[in-house]
Amino acid sequence: MSHIISMLKTHPNKPNDPDLQKLADCIAACFECAQSCTACADACLAEDMVAELRLCIRTNLDCADICNATVNVLTRQTGQNPSAVKAMLEACRTACQQCATECEKHAVMHEHCQVCAEACRRCEKACALLLAAIG
Amino acid sequence: MSHIISMLKTHPNKPNDPDLQKLADCIAACFECAQSCTACADACLAEDMVAELRLCIRTNLDCADICNATVNVLTRQTGQNPSAVKAMLEACRTACQQCATECEKHAVMHEHCQVCAEACRRCEKACALLLAAIG
Amino acid sequence: MSHIISMLKTHPNKPNDPDLQKLADCIAACFECAQSCTACADACLAEDMVAELRLCIRTNLDCADICNATVNVLTRQTGQNPSAVKAMLEACRTACQQCATECEKHAVMHEHCQVCAEACRRCEKACALLLAAIG
Amino acid sequence: MSHIISMLKTHPNKPNDPDLQKLADCIAACFECAQSCTACADACLAEDMVAELRLCIRTNLDCADICNATVNVLTRQTGQNPSAVKAMLEACRTACQQCATECEKHAVMHEHCQVCAEACRRCEKACALLLAAIG
Repeated sequence: MSHIISMLKTHPNKPNDPDLQKLADCIAACFECAQSCTACADACLAEDMVAELRLCIRTNLDCADICNATVNVLTRQTGQNPSAVKAMLEACRTACQQCATECEKHAVMHEHCQVCAEACRRCEKACALLLAAIG
Repeated sequence: MSHIISMLKTHPNKPNDPDLQKLADCIAACFECAQSCTACADACLAEDMVAELRLCIRTNLDCADICNATVNVLTRQTGQNPSAVKAMLEACRTACQQCATECEKHAVMHEHCQVCAEACRRCEKACALLLAAIG
Repeated sequence: MSHIISMLKTHPNKPNDPDLQKLADCIAACFECAQSCTACADACLAEDMVAELRLCIRTNLDCADICNATVNVLTRQTGQNPSAVKAMLEACRTACQQCATECEKHAVMHEHCQVCAEACRRCEKACALLLAAIG
Repeated sequence: MSHIISMLKTHPNKPNDPDLQKLADCIAACFECAQSCTACADACLAEDMVAELRLCIRTNLDCADICNATVNVLTRQTGQNPSAVKAMLEACRTACQQCATECEKHAVMHEHCQVCAEACRRCEKACALLLAAIG
């Protein structure tokens, strides 16, 4: 997703280079997770055993909404909004952790849950790294 | 916004009555805040002194995205997702507090900032009440 | 939802009065529909017969996403973006019409589908009225 | 964005192979456009000449909201919702065309507008190709 770096580099308030890469990685991970969770919720819905996947669908939909909001908040570099950025990163990390844990329960039976759990774990890690970087 | 109560009451996993009212109030406050922030960002953008309102616009856009995600997470009653719900309520309370503080700086000069700041303060309070209720 | 009118009235590019009321009504109807669809998708997911409600859930989730985007586009009054505004109103009307038709099939059995279908029909009508008003 | 293909391939209602690639390309283009528009709106906001970039910011924010909704609608493969899918693709193509035209006006002076305009043109084309494919 090289366009994320391109857009960050052309911003008048360009972040510093080391932070820029962590930021771009986290934005990419949040989108990958959001789209995977939207897809996994829909795939679970189409399964014969949908009744056993209710919590997975709910958790996926929550995680998708939270990751999508996080993409937007992280993309904005104008002005300073550190407490809201940090609070969203915390919420995103929590939602990804919870969604990964739920998807992993179904990963042996449903490959979409396996792929989605991996996206959630990558996003959880990217949020933690960015939180550590911004203090 | 009586439709919020109507929808919550017809859910198979209907929340208990006292919680249901607090939940409906918080959903209504989050929408009111999200829409006010989207409108205030746009009104600030149209002002002659837009250059002095940059941080207000950025903070409004962040708050709108966070409140909209919170509406969706709070609306879902299927299964249990308490840690993500709480983390989003914390993020929403933080974003509303920060956006209210910023809007209040411009409230004497711009009525849209005054109206928006009030919506942010109501939402901040509704999130705090719901957080206290769900423990 | 008097805050919608308050925010529109304090905008530097305030719409004309007759249009302002139609615009506020449409924004309110879109939010009501979005939130009802999010709630109805989740209520359907919690029903014993969830397997028979798959298309209703999918249609609800699409309608909610489209209505939420429409709220944001309609709220912005800065500059001119008429072709995108009209295209979104058309998409929103279509999504509401389709979601109402699907929910009505389940309305006798599930009250949430009945309440949601009514919100979709109100939103479909509000979009049609606003489209007619803006030409 | 290979995760998009991975998720589509593991869906119980997997699309046919030629359509799957066009669908994945369009989802990727919509996300790239949404994120570029969110970034471009924020970069415009931070420019000294922000007052001359108001319409660009407004158009960017509309395009971002519409593209994000389109990502979600396109990701869902459960059930049939063709009229809403087509209407959203039409709205997305319109919004991208309009945003590209606006960004191109500022592309010589602001590189973020140049990068964003290219993302909008790619998304406009991807929507047109997918609309042609689904009839």
